[in-house]
Amino acid sequence: MESQGTGRQPKYQRIAVELKAAIEDGRYGPGDRLPGENDLMAAYAVARMTARQALGVLQTEGLVEARKGAGVFVREYRPIRRRGVQRLSAGLWGEGRSVWAVDAQGWDLEVQSVTVADEKPPEAIGRVLGLAAGASACVRRRRFALDGRPVMLATSYLDAALVSGTAIAEPDTGPGGIYARLGEIGHGPVRFREEIRSRMPTPQETDRLALSAGTPVVLICRTAFTAEGWAVEVNDMVLDSSAYILEYDFTS
Amino acid sequence: MESQGTGRQPKYQRIAVELKAAIEDGRYGPGDRLPGENDLMAAYAVARMTARQALGVLQTEGLVEARKGAGVFVREYRPIRRRGVQRLSAGLWGEGRSVWAVDAQGWDLEVQSVTVADEKPPEAIGRVLGLAAGASACVRRRRFALDGRPVMLATSYLDAALVSGTAIAEPDTGPGGIYARLGEIGHGPVRFREEIRSRMPTPQETDRLALSAGTPVVLICRTAFTAEGWAVEVNDMVLDSSAYILEYDFTS
Repeated sequence: MESQGTGRQPKYQRIAVELKAAIEDGRYGPGDRLPGENDLMAAYAVARMTARQALGVLQTEGLVEARKGAGVFVREYRPIRRRGVQRLSAGLWGEGRSVWAVDAQGWDLEVQSVTVADEKPPEAIGRVLGLAAGASACVRRRRFALDGRPVMLATSYLDAALVSGTAIAEPDTGPGGIYARLGEIGHGPVRFREEIRSRMPTPQETDRLALSAGTPVVLICRTAFTAEGWAVEVNDMVLDSSAYILEYDFTS
Repeated sequence: MESQGTGRQPKYQRIAVELKAAIEDGRYGPGDRLPGENDLMAAYAVARMTARQALGVLQTEGLVEARKGAGVFVREYRPIRRRGVQRLSAGLWGEGRSVWAVDAQGWDLEVQSVTVADEKPPEAIGRVLGLAAGASACVRRRRFALDGRPVMLATSYLDAALVSGTAIAEPDTGPGGIYARLGEIGHGPVRFREEIRSRMPTPQETDRLALSAGTPVVLICRTAFTAEGWAVEVNDMVLDSSAYILEYDFTS
């Protein structure tokens, strides 16, 4: 961030640029408290609104987060590395490990508020699963938290007729989870497609993921296919973007 | 979006919820103009600020975009499908096609403002490339636009000593691009890693990608490895999240 041309910038922008430079060069590290409005008013001889706007710029860019009553802090970025390809190898869920546990090694993992219900799925998902019009999907909703912090909402859709009577229709799917159970009834997935987008969260997502201002969500829609090319599961995931790096390794 | 409990919601939230429902059920389609502040003031008997806040909610969530002097429009989401795995198959760049052209089939593709320079790379990137301290990287910066709309900024880093004298150090890298040229000097990549994150844009990114308010950027950092496991290129990409779906296919 050069300081050239700052003469034409509004004052709050110039303050924001200086604060950003101080974060970038480590004068304020992850988790550190930034100067507050009063500090900035004194240091730069500006009005409260100008100080607030300057801090607002950093918040909107996701560099800092406001904690109620405590001030504004440099965001601690200790992301979860989610390995798209390795985590879904049959060697892992085949031996009864959870896909999710691969991401969360060394973390305190918690699956919260699991609900399972038979519902009419969104039209596009019903089509992908090859459901007849009006047919139900088994819908599994859950929230994942790491070290007590909610990081992902996930909703899986499967053919209700196919999975009825299996542990997939129970809150606890057992060792190896959904994919191991699908394997046991002859429909284990062998191929996956993940589609990734990003947008700002809805108010409900902000609430359920406890997102601070200026934090987008990453959407992953994963479809799991059997060897015959049949889509057996669609998993709609909403991730706190500040908590994740998604990694995909592949060969040319 | 249920209407239950809306009695406790602020008025602008209730208006926003109704407008969102109208977008979701198709009463306002992509590209349609939403009712303006004056329309909402009349329809809901509210003050201008309330009408503005309601429209602001939709804008922040990225559902609509304001066009100066023309009003607020439902965003046209016609995303580019970027296929992470297929697009980098050697079969494509091996025969002289551009990786990028695979994404852009049927679009009017343009690579804008290419600059090439020898520079000291960011420390982390120098480390990945195995550069000696103080050694230069060949840094290729460019912006990609589809149908005239800027959608991605990309910055590639390569060992300057390795690529000096090749077309990689020229603005036009020739058919098949960087990877074909690396192949010709015996360092063609065979394995790739893409790391994906998302955050709100910096003011510079907002400017260069002409992003509307409430639009995050997706960051892709790709590392290209030779058969010997040597990282020959790091490509730092910044994508307009409203323009892309990233797709990765893989087997278990």
